[in-house]
Amino acid sequence: MKAIVTVGLKTGVLDVQGKAVATALKGLGFDAVRSARVGKVIELDIVGSDAAAAEADVKAMCETLLANTVIESYRVEIKS
Amino acid sequence: MKAIVTVGLKTGVLDVQGKAVATALKGLGFDAVRSARVGKVIELDIVGSDAAAAEADVKAMCETLLANTVIESYRVEIKS
Repeated sequence: MKAIVTVGLKTGVLDVQGKAVATALKGLGFDAVRSARVGKVIELDIVGSDAAAAEADVKAMCETLLANTVIESYRVEIKS
Repeated sequence: MKAIVTVGLKTGVLDVQGKAVATALKGLGFDAVRSARVGKVIELDIVGSDAAAAEADVKAMCETLLANTVIESYRVEIKS
């Protein structure tokens, strides 16, 4: 089973990397870009076939390692 | 309009960060994790309403700045 975890800075938290990307894109002539935000995506390969158990497990992984929940939010998607 | 760009290492390219994440998760007791791969997700806010033009634009952005196409692949998703 696969789990896709998307981790990004919470709204309101300054995203320096995103600002740099937006500025660089504008500098390259992509004037249509208004803003950019950069996050991480973690694709996990998980043993087992119980999707609900896997989701609970992956959420625990996010809380303990994958996301800094003070400034980051995460989204978990399970694909069988 | 929003564009979600997902950038990840191509299959076959060693993902050191992913390996570190998998090892750390196993060390924390999450034995169900077989492997992990880490990528980037870039959320762009784009001016305009032509989805096809935006997609072409974002693909050009990926080729020139957002992805290293020698070792990385990217996926573009446009959300109106």
